Amino acid sequence: MTHKIAILGASGYTGAELIRLIATHPNMDIIALGANSKAGQSMAQVFPHLRHLDLPDLVKIEDIDFTKVDLCFCALPHKTSQEVISALPHDLRIVDLSADFRLRDPEAYETWYGNPHSAVEMQGEAVYGLTEFYREAIAKARLVAGTGCNAATGQYVLRPLIADGVIDLDDIILDLKCGVSGAGRSLKENLLHAELSEGYHAYALGGTHRHLGEFDQEFSAIAGREVKIQFTPHLIPANRGILATGYVKGDPDAVYASLQNAYADEPFIEVLPMGEAPSTRHIRGSNFCHIGVSRDRIEGRAIVVAALDNLTKGSSGQALQNANLMLGEDETVGLMLAPVFP
Amino acid sequence: MTHKIAILGASGYTGAELIRLIATHPNMDIIALGANSKAGQSMAQVFPHLRHLDLPDLVKIEDIDFTKVDLCFCALPHKTSQEVISALPHDLRIVDLSADFRLRDPEAYETWYGNPHSAVEMQGEAVYGLTEFYREAIAKARLVAGTGCNAATGQYVLRPLIADGVIDLDDIILDLKCGVSGAGRSLKENLLHAELSEGYHAYALGGTHRHLGEFDQEFSAIAGREVKIQFTPHLIPANRGILATGYVKGDPDAVYASLQNAYADEPFIEVLPMGEAPSTRHIRGSNFCHIGVSRDRIEGRAIVVAALDNLTKGSSGQALQNANLMLGEDETVGLMLAPVFP
Amino acid sequence: MTHKIAILGASGYTGAELIRLIATHPNMDIIALGANSKAGQSMAQVFPHLRHLDLPDLVKIEDIDFTKVDLCFCALPHKTSQEVISALPHDLRIVDLSADFRLRDPEAYETWYGNPHSAVEMQGEAVYGLTEFYREAIAKARLVAGTGCNAATGQYVLRPLIADGVIDLDDIILDLKCGVSGAGRSLKENLLHAELSEGYHAYALGGTHRHLGEFDQEFSAIAGREVKIQFTPHLIPANRGILATGYVKGDPDAVYASLQNAYADEPFIEVLPMGEAPSTRHIRGSNFCHIGVSRDRIEGRAIVVAALDNLTKGSSGQALQNANLMLGEDETVGLMLAPVFP
Amino acid sequence: MTHKIAILGASGYTGAELIRLIATHPNMDIIALGANSKAGQSMAQVFPHLRHLDLPDLVKIEDIDFTKVDLCFCALPHKTSQEVISALPHDLRIVDLSADFRLRDPEAYETWYGNPHSAVEMQGEAVYGLTEFYREAIAKARLVAGTGCNAATGQYVLRPLIADGVIDLDDIILDLKCGVSGAGRSLKENLLHAELSEGYHAYALGGTHRHLGEFDQEFSAIAGREVKIQFTPHLIPANRGILATGYVKGDPDAVYASLQNAYADEPFIEVLPMGEAPSTRHIRGSNFCHIGVSRDRIEGRAIVVAALDNLTKGSSGQALQNANLMLGEDETVGLMLAPVFP
Repeated sequence: MTHKIAILGASGYTGAELIRLIATHPNMDIIALGANSKAGQSMAQVFPHLRHLDLPDLVKIEDIDFTKVDLCFCALPHKTSQEVISALPHDLRIVDLSADFRLRDPEAYETWYGNPHSAVEMQGEAVYGLTEFYREAIAKARLVAGTGCNAATGQYVLRPLIADGVIDLDDIILDLKCGVSGAGRSLKENLLHAELSEGYHAYALGGTHRHLGEFDQEFSAIAGREVKIQFTPHLIPANRGILATGYVKGDPDAVYASLQNAYADEPFIEVLPMGEAPSTRHIRGSNFCHIGVSRDRIEGRAIVVAALDNLTKGSSGQALQNANLMLGEDETVGLMLAPVFP
Repeated sequence: MTHKIAILGASGYTGAELIRLIATHPNMDIIALGANSKAGQSMAQVFPHLRHLDLPDLVKIEDIDFTKVDLCFCALPHKTSQEVISALPHDLRIVDLSADFRLRDPEAYETWYGNPHSAVEMQGEAVYGLTEFYREAIAKARLVAGTGCNAATGQYVLRPLIADGVIDLDDIILDLKCGVSGAGRSLKENLLHAELSEGYHAYALGGTHRHLGEFDQEFSAIAGREVKIQFTPHLIPANRGILATGYVKGDPDAVYASLQNAYADEPFIEVLPMGEAPSTRHIRGSNFCHIGVSRDRIEGRAIVVAALDNLTKGSSGQALQNANLMLGEDETVGLMLAPVFP
Repeated sequence: MTHKIAILGASGYTGAELIRLIATHPNMDIIALGANSKAGQSMAQVFPHLRHLDLPDLVKIEDIDFTKVDLCFCALPHKTSQEVISALPHDLRIVDLSADFRLRDPEAYETWYGNPHSAVEMQGEAVYGLTEFYREAIAKARLVAGTGCNAATGQYVLRPLIADGVIDLDDIILDLKCGVSGAGRSLKENLLHAELSEGYHAYALGGTHRHLGEFDQEFSAIAGREVKIQFTPHLIPANRGILATGYVKGDPDAVYASLQNAYADEPFIEVLPMGEAPSTRHIRGSNFCHIGVSRDRIEGRAIVVAALDNLTKGSSGQALQNANLMLGEDETVGLMLAPVFP
Repeated sequence: MTHKIAILGASGYTGAELIRLIATHPNMDIIALGANSKAGQSMAQVFPHLRHLDLPDLVKIEDIDFTKVDLCFCALPHKTSQEVISALPHDLRIVDLSADFRLRDPEAYETWYGNPHSAVEMQGEAVYGLTEFYREAIAKARLVAGTGCNAATGQYVLRPLIADGVIDLDDIILDLKCGVSGAGRSLKENLLHAELSEGYHAYALGGTHRHLGEFDQEFSAIAGREVKIQFTPHLIPANRGILATGYVKGDPDAVYASLQNAYADEPFIEVLPMGEAPSTRHIRGSNFCHIGVSRDRIEGRAIVVAALDNLTKGSSGQALQNANLMLGEDETVGLMLAPVFP
């Protein structure tokens, strides 16, 4: 059976990545592509790398007939997303890639995003989209909220360790390095090649990055107490990839066992042999996440490093994985593409 | 029916690219991976990006049982290839990715490669692997010689124009820009990141690049007279991609019509609308080739630009396309992956 | 004696490059920095890499007291430049880095830039700023028009050959590769890192690039007849650097002799030994231009390749070299910085 | 007075960087360049970017007449350096850029470098070359040991904080990101452009990086007790630059005051306004180090980030700064070059 798919926000990078992945999916058919600012254009104009595909032209969202759609991916900007989604049919299955439904608490949302949520009732309905940890709820969900790409990486590092109680909850540091596509296709000076190439730097220092809202929500829920981590993202001169280096206090062997146990049956999470470190070059363009654990020379401390592709496992790949679950497909369909290296 | 595949030279970039592509092929099963220098290692050690695949460990070539192999890809270095291939069973289907069987004339081979050919009889047997132009012969061939990656790109630009007689044969210039993976995984100073990043330059100037042997052989055969083009490759700070800019004398409309006609039914060759120019970013990681034609302000001159991925359409993708033909598969199987952008 | 310097358009890349160079100039003192959109900011805010310098804050151009200025660099956008310059004191020495005064013929200006020139009388007054060929006129000039960065590179390749009559004037091709900083700090989608990294492409194909106006003007003047070349620029994933590959018909030895002779006494133009090719990595951040000549395998054809840094020799370095001449300084003062490699 | 300079190991990146800097030094004259493997070649052959300079050809070290040399820079590989230096005249002023004389304790040296030191008596004589903290001793020294580039960056972050007692000594994490030129010009697979571009990863995890020997030695000496930090370096797809992110426990205001106070009069260390973060793009090619402090959302924790150019301030610039002191010059001579951006 072929599922009829709509993608809103098809002219951004996560929209394009969705189409790239769905192109090899045997049971999905894209029947509508919404992108208000570029409505009327063909995908070959907006994304020439997709010109070989037989795709519908971009249209305004209000011109899409959603009664024919089995599942809708929403890759719109934050805040726009909640407005659009609340106006869509309330029985339409939706995977949202924006930040709008990640935080369950309206107050937390307002704190991190600076504006009151305009669809509070849906906030409660939405299931958090970190597949490996919300699989069953996602399968039954109508609305799934894709996680932040940094938030996903950090959670792959830390969730099992918090759940298994093998690390000190008051001393967790996550130093993260991300490529530039995570910032999207927006026209900002700091995203220019001339600014970024050969340049790297920290940003959102001191606990101000919005993905901390997700960390706080999830880690505190797992631990059953408030957990606040330190988190510093860095922008790296590369297009794709997130590398998260976690510094934790706990027995390195217990840390390793916890991760190995948590991900033993996961199709996309690979725990490397003890002491090995992952590289973004080995997951680029794929839905895989590599995790490595190292023992520090100081007793009782471990370093956990995870690498994934922000556009795939961190965003559109995750979205497709969730959509598969929602539609009764095997969750790996269309996602077993090997990484592109070099 | 599943075809049993061996890959020799599996520890190089073209070997890895073959495995990446075959990983999504429904009817191919890799049963042997040969790599003498790294025999005994697992692919996860040699290429961690392939660690999720269930692959045999690397072995010495002499330890492979070729009686069980339906088709063998040979991704060995030039010169080694002819020695190894002449020692393989003579009824084994082989796609060679080296330069060893591209030139039909032993003398031309010696001129361009500096040593006499050690398997002259096979030189005659081999079919030149430019799929779009040798499709029928490839389907029946036992030994197919993969083309040079630059040679493929240049021929996509020029073959139809020469065949259709729409350009001046004595005034053809091909200015080519290629990424660094075309040089392979060899340890050379000029391939270091510190040397190449932010640096670009011409090399093999004045008609000394070996791929000219292929141009001379093929263009002269099409034209029925000697055709010698000018060809300058440039090394670009990027990993993948070839962009070939052809300067030809002829009516731009006739040039465009010739290319459009030649490639109208080709699954992987996309001729862009008149006046548009291709970019390597739009074919990266895929088997597609984009071609654009522009009219020069000087009457009777056209610029034809082609872009492809040297590791895919220029090498391993082409090899798989040919293998599909040799094995009776549809030639596009395993090759419809969309380009990875950004 | 210290010359008092003003820079208009100090918040762009060429403005920053001027300041970087002047910082080591013993006889220049920057007394005013104009940048209307960022007036009121300090240079440490606009360009943190210059924060160690003791520089005036940015001000509106109308707030600068030009009576105290010995020489004014104008690094404003095209069209703005002519408006601003015509309103400045008419005895003020000016080096303009925009395109506004490069073309002497108002009609040619309108053809290439699409609008009538608003300061036609100054167009006649301006001296074309290609130092090596207009040295004496520049020394006496009040208004010098900096050349296009591509235009400079191409002229270094071709001017001596045309002047010496050693090449066919009807068959000149210039295939040029440039880094992204030449496009300035403007917010355009194709200048984003995510679009450009790992991507390269031709643009302004077929003779539509505005720098052709300069080639036409200069080459025709040298030859005493109309000379039209073919010119294709390509955007390369690098920040700095122009590499121009010229295809000419003529005796390679005569070509080499012509260039060697022309540049024998030039402090910044280095003609490499016959057969060697320059690389942008070897001139980055410097005012040097490297030129190499190769003999093609086809008799009577040569390839000439030149490399320079678009922001230095192609723009701000040239501007400072000209300013030195106008102020009676040795033209190399402040410009002998060695290239930055790697 | 002009100082006569020799450089041993002139064919590596730090050797080239020394020459680039000395080229603008008014009082230094390079009279000998030693490089055993490339003896007989000219610098134009080895480093074409230096071809405009009037430099002696490379010679074997034993062919240099050291009686004419005022100061010798030694940019040889580790271990070779101690052998060569112990054979040089014992009254020759030497700035060593290798790791051989950084550790004062022979046992510590053997632990970190895996072999006994062959010139133990000189180990004691050598002064540690972190200019800002050993200035007086360096001025009087005969042999100065240049610091590790990562070690320098980390010490700029941490020395004042340890000295002033404003941070917890048992909980210091340094997460460091470095460009590839720090690994030198050696032919290793992981330094290839095809491996590194678009790829980044941690290495020497868990406290195994040799620069920890320097941290241990220096921090323990300052604190008067053993101090062991956690240190994870990451390789970044860029040529130059080190960015060190330090996580410390202490009052952020006290941390900021300590750094501001320590570096208030330093010509090359710039402490940014509280809350601002440095970027490697703003120090590239220069001897400057930018330091930023941010307050974490968790009380009593601060993040300190430092950026410098590994080849300049981290190595050859530091060496020249020290040589200036040893020769009685102002320490900034030849080093005030502004960063190259973009």
